[in-house]
Amino acid sequence: MTINESFGIIIFGASGDLALKKLFPAIFFLYSKKHFKSKFYILGTGRTKFENDVFKKRIKNFLVNENKENNEHIDSFLKNINYVSINPFVEDDYNKLVTLIKDYNAKFNFAENLLFYLATPPSLYSIISKNLFYHNLNNENKGWKRIIIEKPFGHNFNSAVELNNELLKYFKEEQLYRIDHYLGKETVQNILVTRFSNTIFEPVWNRNYIHHIEITAAEDQGIEGRAGYYDNYGALRDMVQNHLMQLMALIAMEPPSEISSGSIRNETLKVFQSLLPLQENEIEKYVVRGQYSANTIRNNNIKGYRQEEGILPDSKTETYVAIKCYIENWRWNGIPFYIRTGKRLPTRVTEVVIHFKFPPHKMFCNSEKYNANQLIIRIQPDEGILLKFGLKVPGMGFKVKTVDMDFHYKELSDITLPSAYERLLLDCLQGDSTLYIRNDALEATWKYIDPILRAWSENKKIPLYSYPAGTWGPVASNNLFEDSNITWRYPCKNLSNDNYYCEL
Amino acid sequence: MTINESFGIIIFGASGDLALKKLFPAIFFLYSKKHFKSKFYILGTGRTKFENDVFKKRIKNFLVNENKENNEHIDSFLKNINYVSINPFVEDDYNKLVTLIKDYNAKFNFAENLLFYLATPPSLYSIISKNLFYHNLNNENKGWKRIIIEKPFGHNFNSAVELNNELLKYFKEEQLYRIDHYLGKETVQNILVTRFSNTIFEPVWNRNYIHHIEITAAEDQGIEGRAGYYDNYGALRDMVQNHLMQLMALIAMEPPSEISSGSIRNETLKVFQSLLPLQENEIEKYVVRGQYSANTIRNNNIKGYRQEEGILPDSKTETYVAIKCYIENWRWNGIPFYIRTGKRLPTRVTEVVIHFKFPPHKMFCNSEKYNANQLIIRIQPDEGILLKFGLKVPGMGFKVKTVDMDFHYKELSDITLPSAYERLLLDCLQGDSTLYIRNDALEATWKYIDPILRAWSENKKIPLYSYPAGTWGPVASNNLFEDSNITWRYPCKNLSNDNYYCEL
Repeated sequence: MTINESFGIIIFGASGDLALKKLFPAIFFLYSKKHFKSKFYILGTGRTKFENDVFKKRIKNFLVNENKENNEHIDSFLKNINYVSINPFVEDDYNKLVTLIKDYNAKFNFAENLLFYLATPPSLYSIISKNLFYHNLNNENKGWKRIIIEKPFGHNFNSAVELNNELLKYFKEEQLYRIDHYLGKETVQNILVTRFSNTIFEPVWNRNYIHHIEITAAEDQGIEGRAGYYDNYGALRDMVQNHLMQLMALIAMEPPSEISSGSIRNETLKVFQSLLPLQENEIEKYVVRGQYSANTIRNNNIKGYRQEEGILPDSKTETYVAIKCYIENWRWNGIPFYIRTGKRLPTRVTEVVIHFKFPPHKMFCNSEKYNANQLIIRIQPDEGILLKFGLKVPGMGFKVKTVDMDFHYKELSDITLPSAYERLLLDCLQGDSTLYIRNDALEATWKYIDPILRAWSENKKIPLYSYPAGTWGPVASNNLFEDSNITWRYPCKNLSNDNYYCEL
Repeated sequence: MTINESFGIIIFGASGDLALKKLFPAIFFLYSKKHFKSKFYILGTGRTKFENDVFKKRIKNFLVNENKENNEHIDSFLKNINYVSINPFVEDDYNKLVTLIKDYNAKFNFAENLLFYLATPPSLYSIISKNLFYHNLNNENKGWKRIIIEKPFGHNFNSAVELNNELLKYFKEEQLYRIDHYLGKETVQNILVTRFSNTIFEPVWNRNYIHHIEITAAEDQGIEGRAGYYDNYGALRDMVQNHLMQLMALIAMEPPSEISSGSIRNETLKVFQSLLPLQENEIEKYVVRGQYSANTIRNNNIKGYRQEEGILPDSKTETYVAIKCYIENWRWNGIPFYIRTGKRLPTRVTEVVIHFKFPPHKMFCNSEKYNANQLIIRIQPDEGILLKFGLKVPGMGFKVKTVDMDFHYKELSDITLPSAYERLLLDCLQGDSTLYIRNDALEATWKYIDPILRAWSENKKIPLYSYPAGTWGPVASNNLFEDSNITWRYPCKNLSNDNYYCEL
């Protein structure tokens, strides 16, 4: 897939970490993999003053370090980059930008296709959009204009609606690309392909055959210096409202009529609209929150959340959250979706587990380890797919035990997975918003999350459990399962190595 | 599983290859794996005169050679064996047997449980049964009496009925154990467990989701000195009427109400009864036969069938046969089962391939190698199960390619698979006839096969194709597929390495 028309990318917050570590590398890889058939330029902007050379040198150092073996294209890539310092609040500063863009268009005959990437704090989204609007940089008469913004998109339903309304004064919804980098991951997109390119899965992908579904995003790290952001948001806003609810939608959605941004996003929206709304007075029944406490793991002292730098010793912010959701439609009614995420868990893993029901007729003797079928879709690490199924125990009689059939993406060793940012940037440059969040879906997810946030802040009786760093979160999270024989799966780095608590 | 009561095994044809290479080793392994809690004896009988010691020495040599590492139990095993020479046609000779058995019962306090194994040509089944009957050795008043016979059970419908009627004069059906060693194989039995202990397979195991099914039993060897037998029977009688039709029944049957010989054999019978009967005048449409011709493979000259020792140069016996069958019931109507077997094919493999239909809505671009789902059950070698499914091609867009998820029995490395004869002998000693062929099923399979045999012998226009040794049989066998885009799968020794012609 290639971009055939010339374009410019204008990055706000270009001196920040996101731009340096994710955006420039992603654009570089798209460039070196020949996805750009046309000429392009990148304008970095930020409040900091940089000489062009200094700015480029910084990018070069990063790229060279990251790509020791394959850096032949770096110098030619850097020629397309310039830096211009802009104070986003100062309207006049944007004239510098306008002049540069006009130069490219007039002198170098560029098409007026512009992608604005707002790698800035969300508090700047509105002012930047407004100023771009004032300078006519939203105008698509002579080429497309698109704007990418990063989460958080608001901190609750009202603020999300407010932000949307503000942005929509200056740009059309079709020009707004709300990025969720989870949707850029190969294995997340593969959920759609696995479900809808195979005859064998879709017939059993419903309440008749599925018992429950688990979606886990575990991190072994703590907050890694992001105290200011994290303590204001917490696990529910940081992970569930966006990444995990999007994952759930891909697992639960009806087949779209086609692979297009309209069809797919209509179907995900329907999932969010079908969620059983949580009542504030029953939050405890559906949601468990936790916060990690200090622990010693392999002789390392790990700080508790409240001891992290920048966190107040009485912070109530959750670093773990588990939710039981129901989707009230023909396909899923009565089938719980268990979602959990947390920091300082035993390992870093994101996976979906489809737990099928037991066969309706128990015909064979079971050996100890026999379980119902499970389909495990591993998003990261060790991307792959695993099917747990019953097989005859070799020997006399008819005993069953559970064995694993698996496929690992790394078996396709000829292919390197594109990073989420590569995928998403290329999609945006092509005007494909399939993997970006639409405003209606954004508002629907906040609508679901809002009662939890309100209950937590208003009802002091709802416990905030403590869990030692390096464990699988509060034991109370198992109470979400109606059947006491069922617990969470405890995944490890190894796709098939379940029921095992890893050490950090 | 253990046999708790004492018993005797009387082997007719005890000096033959089957007894030496299969039966004694199987009984030895059952013994050394402690499946016999009680005492037991084995009486070998045959026309040849042997001293007891010479007879035992022969068995010992074989066992020692086969079990270099684990032969500590051989000598104690041999103590349970005796030989008595009997001419099966001479009624008086059986008195020697009666005397020996009485001795065991009286002197050593054996229970009168007797298993007669007829490892003889089928022409002797009737006379031996009659003489056992005359000497009251069918009488179960004081312990069970069972008789195992080996295929061929007749050479067409009438002769099979005749043989059944004859045997049933002397023994009850419940005492008759018609062995089909295919049913003793782990992976064959695993078909039942795979189908009925997993929630995910049964819902798609029908005409709504399956496109067609292939059952292949390929041998790379020729007739290996068995010209006399083989030339009279051919591939259809030797493999299809028994092994492959039994395999088909396990794949196609309805769930039995329990794992018992009655339930399972009732269900397999229903499959045979539901087969669309072939009309003699349309055999060519459903059946292709072939015979291997000479070929040079890796510089070895391989004889054609008609050049094999003991085969007439104008033999019409088929060494390859492929059949398209339909099962006319609610589950399978309209779904073809393709069955093939042959000698001198490129490799030795037995496998079942469930070809699922394409998804009803083609949503994604397909990369070259994309196919519909296939579930491959490998019976031998490299026993295992493989699922071919569509996965997203890593990279931009939504392309699908087919990848493999597999499980190999050898991954259960702690377990050695019992041989088919071990399994089946132990079952018979326990009185479990689940994996033996019942007379009604036997007759039903011959009923299906008979029109093919008649057409072949009466209609000289039906071609007998020649195929070079080491190839996958007559090209005409592909004409059985209605869709010209579909061909047989060409399996190799490696479970996942399809579409590849192996050299011999």
